[in-house]
Amino acid sequence: MAVGQLKKTKRTNLVRNPKRADYDRDAVNQIIDATSLCHVSYIIDGRPYVTPTLQWREGDTIYWHGSSASRFLRQIMGKDVCIAITHFDGFVLARSAFHHSINYRSVMLFGEATKIEDDQKNELLHSFVDQLIPGRWENLRPMTDQEAKATTVFSMPIDEGSAKIRSGPPVDDDEDYSLPIWAGVLPVSQILHDPVSDPKNLDGLEVPAHIRDYKLG
Amino acid sequence: MAVGQLKKTKRTNLVRNPKRADYDRDAVNQIIDATSLCHVSYIIDGRPYVTPTLQWREGDTIYWHGSSASRFLRQIMGKDVCIAITHFDGFVLARSAFHHSINYRSVMLFGEATKIEDDQKNELLHSFVDQLIPGRWENLRPMTDQEAKATTVFSMPIDEGSAKIRSGPPVDDDEDYSLPIWAGVLPVSQILHDPVSDPKNLDGLEVPAHIRDYKLG
Repeated sequence: MAVGQLKKTKRTNLVRNPKRADYDRDAVNQIIDATSLCHVSYIIDGRPYVTPTLQWREGDTIYWHGSSASRFLRQIMGKDVCIAITHFDGFVLARSAFHHSINYRSVMLFGEATKIEDDQKNELLHSFVDQLIPGRWENLRPMTDQEAKATTVFSMPIDEGSAKIRSGPPVDDDEDYSLPIWAGVLPVSQILHDPVSDPKNLDGLEVPAHIRDYKLG
Repeated sequence: MAVGQLKKTKRTNLVRNPKRADYDRDAVNQIIDATSLCHVSYIIDGRPYVTPTLQWREGDTIYWHGSSASRFLRQIMGKDVCIAITHFDGFVLARSAFHHSINYRSVMLFGEATKIEDDQKNELLHSFVDQLIPGRWENLRPMTDQEAKATTVFSMPIDEGSAKIRSGPPVDDDEDYSLPIWAGVLPVSQILHDPVSDPKNLDGLEVPAHIRDYKLG
């Protein structure tokens, strides 16, 4: 995993509370790697769009994929996109409405979406599945050429953006700490439930180790 | 809660798999109401941005708020935005890489961001807190005029957009069902943990009922 400084650019002014900004690449990578879900923002005919999709990271590059027929993917080729990755970690309950907040970890990345050429695509899709569910790829029916053709992969270098993290208890106005109001945090997290086997599985198929041992994040 | 048809427009072509499209307003409202987190997409200087923030709904209108000093909020006034609300419900594990998917519920809304006038703002912020954590507002130190001034609220009518839902087991190619590959779903959900009291709470303050009884969604 490459470690370096995330470029600070004018566009990082977007950070709403500069005290929470953190441009450390390690922090950025950790936030990216802790979930597959991202939101990609782009422009069509001068109007903003945002589409949820799955991402994965290799080194200093972020990737996402989809159907080659998708309007979203056909429109962003070589265009500016902004990608957000967000973890909601809890409600922050202060003594005033104004200081209520949430605990979260978020990354915003900026750059141009580059379409991956065919000769690199299969290897990248393999890595994607390996990162999403380690051990799964080798258990699957191999990908066909037609399936690879129907799939488009995009990449973007991770070199412009920002990370924001809020954690811990509320921060109230000094004079409000003497009020008899309960304050604190209601932590939220994502959990995995027991695997649900496809009713169409062949008889006698056990849940494999790579699924039984799967951990989120 | 108003019930009606969500307008179908050209922009709903964005739906990547039309079979998953669902334009029913009830479905849209349920997806919106099941979380506070949303991603707002907008344009500054011809470039796309996406910012995570909290939203709430009243009838056929969606609202969000933030600091009046925020560049994000100052830039979107009267401008087109696109808002995504996404629930990640699980990994869908098929017999081929190609048919892997996720279960999810998502809404994409399009429209113009309208800044709320001061005389409506206090009431809306009260509703926001009531929806976020029912019962909390009445326990808080009242909002000051300065705090209201420092807060900007935006609204957008919910009348253009789409909902997409995927649930259930994988859908594989017919011939793949005879393969001895375990397929199924790894369900994911958000959970709430026990409240963590602020170490600066006054001695003897108990976790109040409105926090103890709080349920997600």
